[in-house]
Amino acid sequence: MAKVMIVYASDYGSTKKMAEKVAQGVESVPGAEALVRTAEEATAEEVISSDALILGSPVHMGSMDRRVKGFIDRVCGGLWMEDKLVGRVGAVFASGGGFGNAGCGCELTMLSMLNNLAELGMLIVPLPKNTSGFPKGGLQWGPYGRSLTETGEPMEGGVPEERIETAFFHGANVARVAEAVKGRELLRSS
Amino acid sequence: MAKVMIVYASDYGSTKKMAEKVAQGVESVPGAEALVRTAEEATAEEVISSDALILGSPVHMGSMDRRVKGFIDRVCGGLWMEDKLVGRVGAVFASGGGFGNAGCGCELTMLSMLNNLAELGMLIVPLPKNTSGFPKGGLQWGPYGRSLTETGEPMEGGVPEERIETAFFHGANVARVAEAVKGRELLRSS
Amino acid sequence: MAKVMIVYASDYGSTKKMAEKVAQGVESVPGAEALVRTAEEATAEEVISSDALILGSPVHMGSMDRRVKGFIDRVCGGLWMEDKLVGRVGAVFASGGGFGNAGCGCELTMLSMLNNLAELGMLIVPLPKNTSGFPKGGLQWGPYGRSLTETGEPMEGGVPEERIETAFFHGANVARVAEAVKGRELLRSS
Amino acid sequence: MAKVMIVYASDYGSTKKMAEKVAQGVESVPGAEALVRTAEEATAEEVISSDALILGSPVHMGSMDRRVKGFIDRVCGGLWMEDKLVGRVGAVFASGGGFGNAGCGCELTMLSMLNNLAELGMLIVPLPKNTSGFPKGGLQWGPYGRSLTETGEPMEGGVPEERIETAFFHGANVARVAEAVKGRELLRSS
Repeated sequence: MAKVMIVYASDYGSTKKMAEKVAQGVESVPGAEALVRTAEEATAEEVISSDALILGSPVHMGSMDRRVKGFIDRVCGGLWMEDKLVGRVGAVFASGGGFGNAGCGCELTMLSMLNNLAELGMLIVPLPKNTSGFPKGGLQWGPYGRSLTETGEPMEGGVPEERIETAFFHGANVARVAEAVKGRELLRSS
Repeated sequence: MAKVMIVYASDYGSTKKMAEKVAQGVESVPGAEALVRTAEEATAEEVISSDALILGSPVHMGSMDRRVKGFIDRVCGGLWMEDKLVGRVGAVFASGGGFGNAGCGCELTMLSMLNNLAELGMLIVPLPKNTSGFPKGGLQWGPYGRSLTETGEPMEGGVPEERIETAFFHGANVARVAEAVKGRELLRSS
Repeated sequence: MAKVMIVYASDYGSTKKMAEKVAQGVESVPGAEALVRTAEEATAEEVISSDALILGSPVHMGSMDRRVKGFIDRVCGGLWMEDKLVGRVGAVFASGGGFGNAGCGCELTMLSMLNNLAELGMLIVPLPKNTSGFPKGGLQWGPYGRSLTETGEPMEGGVPEERIETAFFHGANVARVAEAVKGRELLRSS
Repeated sequence: MAKVMIVYASDYGSTKKMAEKVAQGVESVPGAEALVRTAEEATAEEVISSDALILGSPVHMGSMDRRVKGFIDRVCGGLWMEDKLVGRVGAVFASGGGFGNAGCGCELTMLSMLNNLAELGMLIVPLPKNTSGFPKGGLQWGPYGRSLTETGEPMEGGVPEERIETAFFHGANVARVAEAVKGRELLRSS
């Protein structure tokens, strides 16, 4: 009966689309429940009552969106002070144009979000390369929805379905891990 | 006659103190001029009219302060679109408690700011280990002002002078590099 | 009955000392078993028969020791090709002088090892800040054994016990997580 | 009369091809001279007598090739001890399959090499997004030669010319920066 919270910010809808895909994956796991919130509306209470936290952001200048960073400073900082999320489960995803054919800064963007999850003491779920859909939109740290063509033009309808398919399985993975470790106090202070 | 802009955010004054120290270093170089601005007041016009940009932030959960990120999204994003800062000079500094005796996330914090500068196409000035004051407050990516003792207690008067001394020389280094490359179009698109 | 493999390289003994401390932590968990190997002697068979893999390295110029990297290229690359370690558990630790009072490159060093573990599809165990011993030698990504004083001088007897105490609990945490997820196929390709 | 040294490792020839392209770019700048060496043959003397150092590596499990790491430990470590390269110029490039459509770990790989250059106290030359060829093979940290198709198949003849074109201009940029700063002691210890 794992609860997985997904917190994201979105500019033109790609990250939102990915957040929904991740949520569908979560809910494909029997008993798991997804809670999707924008970075601006998410509350500390919602995070505390969740077994897992998945952060999603567009890539802006090689780091996360200011609203996601605002969520971290506003909500996560306090939870870190009180060690509230130690031993829970965390994961990330990102979207971006992909200009340059080399990820366009998505790796450091994911790491800046993961750093927050690591500081909170959360187990981190990566994205294995054999996950369905990985070849079209995956990094080892999580799904990456690439919204432009190789030559930098927007694709009709935004980021195509095939490029975010892997986000579904990422959500399911996180739900299963959250269910396996919840309430078990696997990480102990002494 | 290099102009060096310093953009920072500060919570309890440590990063502000470092920003001022960096500015003093800049102005120790004959002809160089420093412009110090908070992340919230800095404008695109000020950045465009500067030869170098130095970003400073407290370390919050392993990444930069949301206000510094806000500056990047609000101001730098547009300058990136138009390639306005290609070939200028960039650098960073950070402050933090240093809890854990291992930098406390300052390296990824500096890198998330440096990623912005790299995307803007700016030459990056590191902090050589032989810089005066480095042993007390330096990382290869820039000065780090550590405001707590080894056991995690605040020090009287905030971050001590000896731990931010290296920021002075970082500012001077940036000013000299800015003067050496300004107006020379060393980075060319073809 | 989790088996935890610890692979490390060491120059002057600090990383070796940490590897042993991690192993003691592993074995403090009822039923868990530790296997300690240098990067040069570790074999693919040993990794495959383990439930968790913990990598430890000295920090050399901001990245892992060449022997640890050699282990990754020689052993882990092939296991990655065949998705052999998906869903197992991974963690890291590092040692270094700590010159500069800011981690001395240990964060990127740990991340370069974690990147390997993420590519292998392993769940990553961070080091929560409330872990015993953290204030003397911890980063969110894992234990950091700092072998020099604040002014850069070697300490008698090498890295002191109090600075690697947290490595013990890190090992125990990894063993518990490994036991909780072993054989459960929580990460699925579709 | 800048001398630019290029040190690389290569498995199947892509990184070698890029190294040669970078060298051509260097030599396109009047008076600049390129020295191309494999990581295994490069010597400290060659590095010391160069004004700039460019490192290139295939991406292996999210970090640099073990031979490049070996060069860093074997050659650069000693130069770092003696502050031999402070104020010189550094840059990087990488090659990889690009599996996943998101850079495949190339960003952390480039950063692990850049960390070495930063520790050496070298000015870092990024790759501006307006550089010719960037859309087909560029990251802000340097050129990325992607050798597989989007579906993960090898391309006839290896990494195609259009995907490494940007490496030529990267080399030229580095040569110009090296020429501008050589012998000027812009980074000073006090």
